[in-house]
Amino acid sequence: MHAFVYHGPGEGHWESVEDPKIEHPADALVRIEAATVCVGDLHVLRGDIGGVKPGTVLGHEAVGEIMEVGPEVHAVVPGDEVILSSISACGQCLQCREGAYGQCTQGGGWLLGHEVNGTQAEFVRVPFADHSTHKLPYTLDRSTAVLFSEVLPAAFELGVRNGKVRPGAVVVVVGAGPVGLAALVVAGIFTPARVVAVDLSPRRLEIATGLGADAAELPGRLIAELSEGPGADVVIEAAGSPDSFTLCTRAVRSGGHIANIGMHDSSVTLHLENLWRKNVTISTGQVDTASTHWLLETLTPTHMERLSRLITGTLGFARTSDAYEALTTAVDTGALRTVLQPM
Amino acid sequence: MHAFVYHGPGEGHWESVEDPKIEHPADALVRIEAATVCVGDLHVLRGDIGGVKPGTVLGHEAVGEIMEVGPEVHAVVPGDEVILSSISACGQCLQCREGAYGQCTQGGGWLLGHEVNGTQAEFVRVPFADHSTHKLPYTLDRSTAVLFSEVLPAAFELGVRNGKVRPGAVVVVVGAGPVGLAALVVAGIFTPARVVAVDLSPRRLEIATGLGADAAELPGRLIAELSEGPGADVVIEAAGSPDSFTLCTRAVRSGGHIANIGMHDSSVTLHLENLWRKNVTISTGQVDTASTHWLLETLTPTHMERLSRLITGTLGFARTSDAYEALTTAVDTGALRTVLQPM
Amino acid sequence: MHAFVYHGPGEGHWESVEDPKIEHPADALVRIEAATVCVGDLHVLRGDIGGVKPGTVLGHEAVGEIMEVGPEVHAVVPGDEVILSSISACGQCLQCREGAYGQCTQGGGWLLGHEVNGTQAEFVRVPFADHSTHKLPYTLDRSTAVLFSEVLPAAFELGVRNGKVRPGAVVVVVGAGPVGLAALVVAGIFTPARVVAVDLSPRRLEIATGLGADAAELPGRLIAELSEGPGADVVIEAAGSPDSFTLCTRAVRSGGHIANIGMHDSSVTLHLENLWRKNVTISTGQVDTASTHWLLETLTPTHMERLSRLITGTLGFARTSDAYEALTTAVDTGALRTVLQPM
Amino acid sequence: MHAFVYHGPGEGHWESVEDPKIEHPADALVRIEAATVCVGDLHVLRGDIGGVKPGTVLGHEAVGEIMEVGPEVHAVVPGDEVILSSISACGQCLQCREGAYGQCTQGGGWLLGHEVNGTQAEFVRVPFADHSTHKLPYTLDRSTAVLFSEVLPAAFELGVRNGKVRPGAVVVVVGAGPVGLAALVVAGIFTPARVVAVDLSPRRLEIATGLGADAAELPGRLIAELSEGPGADVVIEAAGSPDSFTLCTRAVRSGGHIANIGMHDSSVTLHLENLWRKNVTISTGQVDTASTHWLLETLTPTHMERLSRLITGTLGFARTSDAYEALTTAVDTGALRTVLQPM
Repeated sequence: MHAFVYHGPGEGHWESVEDPKIEHPADALVRIEAATVCVGDLHVLRGDIGGVKPGTVLGHEAVGEIMEVGPEVHAVVPGDEVILSSISACGQCLQCREGAYGQCTQGGGWLLGHEVNGTQAEFVRVPFADHSTHKLPYTLDRSTAVLFSEVLPAAFELGVRNGKVRPGAVVVVVGAGPVGLAALVVAGIFTPARVVAVDLSPRRLEIATGLGADAAELPGRLIAELSEGPGADVVIEAAGSPDSFTLCTRAVRSGGHIANIGMHDSSVTLHLENLWRKNVTISTGQVDTASTHWLLETLTPTHMERLSRLITGTLGFARTSDAYEALTTAVDTGALRTVLQPM
Repeated sequence: MHAFVYHGPGEGHWESVEDPKIEHPADALVRIEAATVCVGDLHVLRGDIGGVKPGTVLGHEAVGEIMEVGPEVHAVVPGDEVILSSISACGQCLQCREGAYGQCTQGGGWLLGHEVNGTQAEFVRVPFADHSTHKLPYTLDRSTAVLFSEVLPAAFELGVRNGKVRPGAVVVVVGAGPVGLAALVVAGIFTPARVVAVDLSPRRLEIATGLGADAAELPGRLIAELSEGPGADVVIEAAGSPDSFTLCTRAVRSGGHIANIGMHDSSVTLHLENLWRKNVTISTGQVDTASTHWLLETLTPTHMERLSRLITGTLGFARTSDAYEALTTAVDTGALRTVLQPM
Repeated sequence: MHAFVYHGPGEGHWESVEDPKIEHPADALVRIEAATVCVGDLHVLRGDIGGVKPGTVLGHEAVGEIMEVGPEVHAVVPGDEVILSSISACGQCLQCREGAYGQCTQGGGWLLGHEVNGTQAEFVRVPFADHSTHKLPYTLDRSTAVLFSEVLPAAFELGVRNGKVRPGAVVVVVGAGPVGLAALVVAGIFTPARVVAVDLSPRRLEIATGLGADAAELPGRLIAELSEGPGADVVIEAAGSPDSFTLCTRAVRSGGHIANIGMHDSSVTLHLENLWRKNVTISTGQVDTASTHWLLETLTPTHMERLSRLITGTLGFARTSDAYEALTTAVDTGALRTVLQPM
Repeated sequence: MHAFVYHGPGEGHWESVEDPKIEHPADALVRIEAATVCVGDLHVLRGDIGGVKPGTVLGHEAVGEIMEVGPEVHAVVPGDEVILSSISACGQCLQCREGAYGQCTQGGGWLLGHEVNGTQAEFVRVPFADHSTHKLPYTLDRSTAVLFSEVLPAAFELGVRNGKVRPGAVVVVVGAGPVGLAALVVAGIFTPARVVAVDLSPRRLEIATGLGADAAELPGRLIAELSEGPGADVVIEAAGSPDSFTLCTRAVRSGGHIANIGMHDSSVTLHLENLWRKNVTISTGQVDTASTHWLLETLTPTHMERLSRLITGTLGFARTSDAYEALTTAVDTGALRTVLQPM
C-alpha cells in the first residue's frame, strides 16, 4: 500500500510501504476512507516530539472500513464503517476502567502515528479495536466524522468538561483553531451566557462569529476588560503558547476555571503572586476519547452542521504533504482542517 | 488599650492606641484572650503586602469574649466566648451565599489586620460578626482554638478539600509549617493510604512524624521516586515558594491534584511542556473560613490533641514582637505557633 | 387594605383587613403588583394543610414595589420593584448557609400564606427581606416574573437539578401543569436528547407540544414502552398523585433518577421488589428558591417567551376566588396560571 | 466433581456433577478454596427468585485458584489465587464502561449461582474472568477474602457511597447482618461523627458494639428520637423488609440519604405525604463489584481484623446444607457467615 512516512525531522513522503496485518488478537485492520492532519502531526514531522522512529506512518485521525479483525475483537466486524479514536485503550487497566484511556498503563495511549504506524495511509492496523473504534452513524458524513477521532473529544473532555462549563457561564476560548472552534460549538450544549473567541487571526475570528460566538476579538481590549472586571467563569486554552496561557490566567474570574487543551513545547510563567488568592482551578490533560460515543448521541444536527465547517479542504492521499503545508499558513488563510481521501 | 501597630516596613510596636468601638450595626466588640502571629502577618510587617496603612493594628487570628454587639448581630451576645475568623463575610452577596467568603464583594474578605485594625490587641472591632465568629466549644482550650481562625480552615479548604483527598489516596504535603502540618492531620479524616511530609528542616520533619506522617523526608529522594513512579494522588503546597511549587508538579501523578495553600510573592515556572498531557488539576485560593463550624463538629479528640502540638509557645501581649521574631527562625528552632495572651 | 383571607376549610374571601406594618428589623413592606394562586393555596383553602390559622391572608407568590424596609434590610430600598420568593430565608442558620432555605431552622421556610399573612393582598409584610426578594429585571414583564416566586425555582431545583438532567438525557415529565411545563422548558438549558410530557389532559399535552416537548402523550403506550425498553434517564413527578409516582418508577431506567416536585396528600406504594436492584435514585424536597438569581441570569429570551405562555389569564384582586375556582377545572380547560392584579 | 445443586424450591443437595470446563474464550476455570452462603442464596433455594433452573449449582461468592484460562483472559494466569466477584462484567458495554457492572448489557450481571453454575462447588467456570476476578493479596486470609466477593462491595457501593457518608455524618444502619455490619465498618473510613446500628436481635447488636458502633439498639427509642430530632444524615437499609425501610424514612433528616442495600420481596409504603417536602434522597441498586480493587487497597489492617469477625463458622463443602440451615436461625444465634471449604 501507500502511506505518508516520517523519515526524520522535516522529512515525510507519500510512498509505498508494506501492507499492515493483524499482529495481536485485539487488532483490527481498517481501510482508510478519510483521514486528516493536525498540529500534533506537524510537531511530529518537525521532530519536536521524541520517540517517533523514522519509518513510522503518521496520522491518528480517520474514518474507514473494517477489513479484518483479530479473534478478541467483538464490537465490530468486517464491513463496519468506523471512526478510529486517536487513543488506543486496553479497556482493562485501572486507568481505562475509569475512562482515562489516554493514561492507559497496559500498552495503550497515543499509539497511532506515534508509537505504531498511523492513519495517513491506505490501510492501518488498529490496536485494541474494541475500545478504539466507533460505528459511523448513518446520518454523519465521513469528513465531519473525522473530527470525532480527536478534535471533538479533546474539545469536550479537556475544554468544556474539565472547564466545568455550565448554564449561564461566561466562556472564553483562546485560540480559534479547529479544536478551539469545536470547543466553542460544544460549549453551546450547556447554554452558557456568552462564548467569546480570542485569536490573533482576523480570518479565524470571522469563522468563530459564523459558528455562533457572541464575540470574537483580538486579545487586547477584551482581555483587559475581563481582567479588570469580574472575569470569565471558564477560559479554555486552545492555542498551546505561553502567551495565550498567560492571557487565560488574566481573563479568569475568582472561582473560575482554566482548561488547557493546547500542546505546549515550553514552560510558561504562572503568576502565583496574583493567583494564589484567586480560587482558580487549572486543568491539563491528554484527550481520552472516552466521550466519543456520548458526543455522537448528544450533538444535534445543528451542531453537526456547524462542525462540518471546520473541514475547509479535501485532498487526495498523494497530496498529504500539501495538507501539512496548509497547516503552516492556516492562521492567515483561514484554513482549518483538510480531509485526505483515497484518489 | 494597647495593641501591636504597624508603622511602615519593618516597624511594629506594642503601644497605646484608642479603644475600638462599634462602628456599624453588624459589628461586635471583642476582648482578646488569645491571638497569634502567622507568616502572613510577617509579610505585612515587612511591607510585602500592599494596601496596609501605617497605624493599622496587625493580626487576624484570635479567641475572645464578646463585649458588645451592634443591633444587627444575632448569632452571638455579650459574654459569649468566640473564635474569630480571619475572613469577615457579609453573608449576603452572591459569593458569600456560595460560601466563598474570601471573595466577598460587599465589604468583606480579609479585613482584620489588613484593611481594618486586627487582633494583636486587647480589644478588636469585628465586622460582620454573625458570619465571622464561632462559639468556642467547652471542650476546646483557647490556644488550640486559635488555630480555627485560619490555620485549620485553610488546611482543610485549600489543601484537603480542593486537593480531593479521599480514602486510599497517597498525599504529599510540601512544607511542614503550621498549615502544612494541620493539613497532614486533617487529611487523616479521609483515611488516606499514606500521608508524606516534605520539608527542608529536620526539626519539622520530626514533628510531622510525631503527628502521624507515614514518612517525613527532605525533598530529594522521595520526590525523585514519586516523579519516576506513579506519583501522588494529592500534593499540597504549603510552603509558598517557587521551588516547592515545582516539586509539587513533579510529585503528582497523572490524574492527580496540586492544591496550593501557600502565599506566593513571585511567579513560578509551570512546566506545561511536561504537564499538558498529564491530566493534572492545580487549585489556588484564599481561605474562606466557611468550613470552621464543620471542622469543630467533625474533628475528634485525637485530632484535637495532635493539633494542640502546633502551639509551641506562649507569650504575653507586650512581647508580640518576639513572636514575630520567633517566626523568622522557626524553620531551625522547630517553633510553630506562639499564642499571645493578656498578661 | 383588602386581601384574600382564609376562614377555615373551603372558606376564603376578599375583604378588608388591617394594613401590615414592619414588625421585625429584617422585614420589608411590599405593595403587590401581581400575585397568583397555586395548587398549594388550593390545598390550604380546602384545609388539607395543617397549621394555617383562620384569619390568615393566603398566597406566597408575587411581584411588587418595596414601600418600606426595616433597619436590617440592605439589599433593597423603597421604590425597588421585586420578585418575592415563596420561601423566607434567615440566611444565617446552617441550612440557609448551604442554600437549603426551605429547611431554615431560625424562623424561615414557607411563611407567606402559611404561617404569616401572604401575597393575595394589596400589601404584604415580607420577613427576612434580604434573602427573600430579587430585583425585577427591566426586560421581564410582571406576569412572567411571578413565576420566579416559586414555579421556576421549584421546576429547576426539584426537577431538573435534583433529577440530574444533562446533555443527551431522555427526560419524562409526568404532569403537565404549570410546574411540570416549567420543568420541561428549563430542562432545555441542558440540551437533553428528548423531553416527553405525560398527562391525562389532551389540552395540556397540546400546550406541552407548543412549548417544545419532543412528545406529549397519555400515560399508556409511552410508559409501557419505557418500562419495557431501556427507560428514561430522568423522570420528573409534577402531578402529586400516587398513580403518577408509580408511573415514574416504571418509566425510569437502571441508573436513572426520579425527581419528585409534586405535593402529596397520601402515601404511595414503592415497588422495591422490582426497584431494589435497579440503581435508581428518588429525590424529594421543598423548593428553596435559592436558584432564583441564577435562573434570572441564565434563562434566555426564548425561554422567557415560552414561560410567559404559562400565564393564561388575568383577574383583578377582588376576583381572587375565581382564580381558585379556575384551578379546580384547569385540567379540562387548559388554564394554567391566573395573574391577580390591583384593579 | 461435587457441588451444591438446586432441584426446585427447598431442594438442594451436595452431589456429584460433571466437571465444568472453559466454554468461552473469556472464561477461567477456578478450584474453590473458600465459598459461603448468603441470604440471596437462601432466597434462590426457597424458589423466591425466578429464573433459576433446577440443576443449577448455587453460590456466587468464593476464593480459589485459577486452573485454566480461555485465550481472551489476560489479567490472571493458572496458579493465581483470586477473589471471585459475584457480578460477571463484560467490561465492554456502555454500562460496564461506567462501572455499572451489575447492569451489564452484553451477557454479564449476576450469573454465578443464578444463570450459570455457581461457587458452592469444587470447581467453577467464571465468565468474563478479566473483569470478575481479583488477585488475593498476600496479607489477606481466604475466609475474610470471601467477603470481598460481594459483602464488602455491596456495603460500600450501595450503603456508604450511595448514602454519601462523609466526615461528621450521623449514620444509622438498619439491619445488623453481615452486610449491615460491613457497612458499619466501612463507613468508618470517612470518619463519621456517629454510627448507630439498629436490629431486632440483641446478639447482633452486641456484635455491632464490638465492631465499633457508637450505639446499637432495638428500633424503638432511637428511631423515635431521630424522627423527632434532626434525624440522621445517612440511613442504610440492610435488612430488606418493609418495616425496616419505613424505619429508615422516619430516621432520616431533611437533606439526608436513605441507601437501600437489602433485597426486597415485596413493595413498601412510602410516606410521601411526609417526605415530599423533606429533601430526601433514596437510592437502590444491585452491587457492581466495581469497587473491589479500591477496597482491597484502602481498608487498613484494623478494618480487616474487624471484618474477619463476620466469619463465625467453617464447614466442609459436604455440609453446605448446614450452612443454609444456619442462616435461617442466624438472627437468634448470632451466626453471621459460614465459610465452606474443601474437606
